[in-house]
Amino acid sequence: MPVSIKMTQPAGDGTAAYQSLADEIRELIEAGTLRVGDRIPSIRRLRQQSSRSISTVLHAYQVLEGMGLIEARPQSGYYVKRRPSAGSTIACSDPSSTPRAVNVLDRLTRINREMCDPALVPLGGAHPGKPMLPMRQLLRLERTLGRVARRGADWYEFPAGALELQQAIASHYIDAGCTFAPEDIVVTCGAQEALVLCLRAVAKAGDVVGVESPTYFGVLQAMESLSIRAVELPTHPQHGLDLDRLRRTLARQKLKALIVSTNAQNPLGFVTSDEHKRELTRIITRQRLPLIEDDVYGDLTHGPRPRTCKAYDEEGLVMLCSSFSKSLAPGMRIGWCAPGRWREQIERLKFSSTIASHTIAQQVIAAYIKQGGYVRHLRKITRIYEQQLCTASNTVLESFPAGTNVAHPVGGFVLWIELPRTIDAMALYERSAAAGISIAPGPIFSPSGRYQHHIRLSIGHPWSPTLAAGIRRVGELAKELSVR
Amino acid sequence: MPVSIKMTQPAGDGTAAYQSLADEIRELIEAGTLRVGDRIPSIRRLRQQSSRSISTVLHAYQVLEGMGLIEARPQSGYYVKRRPSAGSTIACSDPSSTPRAVNVLDRLTRINREMCDPALVPLGGAHPGKPMLPMRQLLRLERTLGRVARRGADWYEFPAGALELQQAIASHYIDAGCTFAPEDIVVTCGAQEALVLCLRAVAKAGDVVGVESPTYFGVLQAMESLSIRAVELPTHPQHGLDLDRLRRTLARQKLKALIVSTNAQNPLGFVTSDEHKRELTRIITRQRLPLIEDDVYGDLTHGPRPRTCKAYDEEGLVMLCSSFSKSLAPGMRIGWCAPGRWREQIERLKFSSTIASHTIAQQVIAAYIKQGGYVRHLRKITRIYEQQLCTASNTVLESFPAGTNVAHPVGGFVLWIELPRTIDAMALYERSAAAGISIAPGPIFSPSGRYQHHIRLSIGHPWSPTLAAGIRRVGELAKELSVR
Repeated sequence: MPVSIKMTQPAGDGTAAYQSLADEIRELIEAGTLRVGDRIPSIRRLRQQSSRSISTVLHAYQVLEGMGLIEARPQSGYYVKRRPSAGSTIACSDPSSTPRAVNVLDRLTRINREMCDPALVPLGGAHPGKPMLPMRQLLRLERTLGRVARRGADWYEFPAGALELQQAIASHYIDAGCTFAPEDIVVTCGAQEALVLCLRAVAKAGDVVGVESPTYFGVLQAMESLSIRAVELPTHPQHGLDLDRLRRTLARQKLKALIVSTNAQNPLGFVTSDEHKRELTRIITRQRLPLIEDDVYGDLTHGPRPRTCKAYDEEGLVMLCSSFSKSLAPGMRIGWCAPGRWREQIERLKFSSTIASHTIAQQVIAAYIKQGGYVRHLRKITRIYEQQLCTASNTVLESFPAGTNVAHPVGGFVLWIELPRTIDAMALYERSAAAGISIAPGPIFSPSGRYQHHIRLSIGHPWSPTLAAGIRRVGELAKELSVR
Repeated sequence: MPVSIKMTQPAGDGTAAYQSLADEIRELIEAGTLRVGDRIPSIRRLRQQSSRSISTVLHAYQVLEGMGLIEARPQSGYYVKRRPSAGSTIACSDPSSTPRAVNVLDRLTRINREMCDPALVPLGGAHPGKPMLPMRQLLRLERTLGRVARRGADWYEFPAGALELQQAIASHYIDAGCTFAPEDIVVTCGAQEALVLCLRAVAKAGDVVGVESPTYFGVLQAMESLSIRAVELPTHPQHGLDLDRLRRTLARQKLKALIVSTNAQNPLGFVTSDEHKRELTRIITRQRLPLIEDDVYGDLTHGPRPRTCKAYDEEGLVMLCSSFSKSLAPGMRIGWCAPGRWREQIERLKFSSTIASHTIAQQVIAAYIKQGGYVRHLRKITRIYEQQLCTASNTVLESFPAGTNVAHPVGGFVLWIELPRTIDAMALYERSAAAGISIAPGPIFSPSGRYQHHIRLSIGHPWSPTLAAGIRRVGELAKELSVR
């Protein structure tokens, strides 16, 4: 008999309604309100109870099914399959608030070789797999561009980029709440160059910049190579930066900038709410603090296109960075930034660093966006990534040692995993590599080498028996390490 | 009646024998030993006198003819046409030896827009013209690479570059006296990124680096953007860095690095002798001083492929930088460096700055080199550039104010011009731009804004009535400015 449950009203913040519904049901299962074997409300009933659309409810059920918490029984409905073990959600991080020199490059240089090694099972680098990318369409486009492309390669593009691409990005980002003029955009060699240029514009060697904890290691690389120090900020795996503690940090610590990723953060996979974004933008505006917003996965969230902090930025303090490397073609090296009040400075730094970006690649991507191909492509692959992450998450929960927790990414294609405390991530990384599997160890996501019992798995390649076997093998290796 | 002249023996240093012969004859004309109307020795006779090959002698005559100093009379021989006006050679520069902050970016950012503006007569940017580049061959190659190329774009290339391209560069540089292993090479986004990474590896904000005077403005941009100070070093327009004065500077001034261009230096166009290169390398080795050697035009010298300082570098102190932007495709953004003992550090900096370079472009260029297309292409275009520079040089001497001197480039495609002291290069630049002509004003080639009565013309586009008229028009504008 189905349990009747009282659902809260939708938050109305425009992001991931299905996710908050799934979260509520998960909490009910955790709390024991819904028990294993219980039938959960039908889609129709839940729709009425929670004022959500059928597709939102269905979406929430699929997420829960993906997490292995509920199962569909033919002709009957959805039933609770498994109660998440106590503590199965990852807690908000609680790093030291002391600024420190970043030290990841030694480790990373070696790890990157394995992340790029095609002979290994590709769970390490956050690289989209070949079938996830519209290479044939892009190459066909390049051919049909014909004379345009040929005209292209023989000249230096303007440092700020091809007008066609600036226009295409500006119009694509309307959905993210941004109203850009084409000239607000500076095209770069991938988002990494955008991050480095933004950092160089606002900080110098010895300065302190705030980062999420954990954070994408590319941010840390950039900071280490510029001798910029980091202070790690408490970050919730579902809600993002802890704004109360951010306020307290800012009250006693002089920062030159903040770097955050608000949409499908790497490695945690959260999308922050519109309210969170608005409030964060308010905080940095009050402090005149530059905010470098990494939106590399913003186009790859599972729900509707979320907004960015940039959408709430009235004073040009947000420097939005993104790229097409995760969604279209890593090898084309096309990223960009919208650096607000640092626009002129960023153009000069770009000009001084690499002159301009690849000419034809800019034309091809601009045409792909303009023709609507990009949005269609995103619609297709985000659904695939969502499904794959669910399956991968299940596989981890089934095969990893008891006490393992996984994040609940709502975008992108990486999965953050907290292992029992006895398991050393670097040892697991070494053993996995020796077993022919590439994974990303937790310490590279922290300037101070925290996350020593965490790993990140990338599910950017199409789901396959090889990927599944790879994950299970890493789970076995983790079990071996845990009993030592 | 031909004058009999005693020629010195060839220097035997392997570079530009024709150039030293041309220099000797020019000096004889300057000194009045050969007078206007005098017949100069026949090729056959001069060959015997000077132990040079017929082609060397012929080459020297062509250079002198290009400079407008001699003319061929049918069935008769070569005659002195014009005596270079006193001081018609540009003197060795004599800059202040005080280190100073570089300040070119303000000017450059604007000037670059004009240098890229296709509506202007393109005498400003050192951009090769469309017909000078094998775009059709490269695009055809990209298509025939087929699956390789498709395999390519969907992954991040290794930070140090595609092995195929590293191999191709290593084998191509044997002719420049370098014995590289493929892994000695780090591929970059153009030579500009290579320069920036090399600077970042050996110097930090506030440090002092020595540069040639005048020097390529991209070097200055890179230094300004990194807050590295510059000391300008006396540089001879034909023989390069004044090594005696370099020794004296090093004796009293702590430098973190030297940046030089030894082959077809931009803007002067000289190629230094092997002996000069060997001695320069000896000096920096004794001082353990990193030498950043910009060889961007090394493949575009008019004579045989000259060596590099890197060829004499036994201790890994020379960081050789180059690119394919001047010879193949500016829009592909493929450069590289061979950074000697800083190899690991440069790979890390590259990884942290732009992750990797464009994947397919690396494959295409590697294939073009391997198939022999690159060397054939160079053979063709260097001859064209040499001819064009001669014609342009003549056009300048005919149409510019009396007292104008031009450099004698033996490579590349730019022409450095010294105007009478009364003419302000920035004013000439402004007036030329207003007249629809892009030129490069002298001050951007100096950290301290020297060369205020110098300009650089780029003859990278095919010679045409438009280019000729453009040069003549700049000459008229210069005359107008000189009489004010």
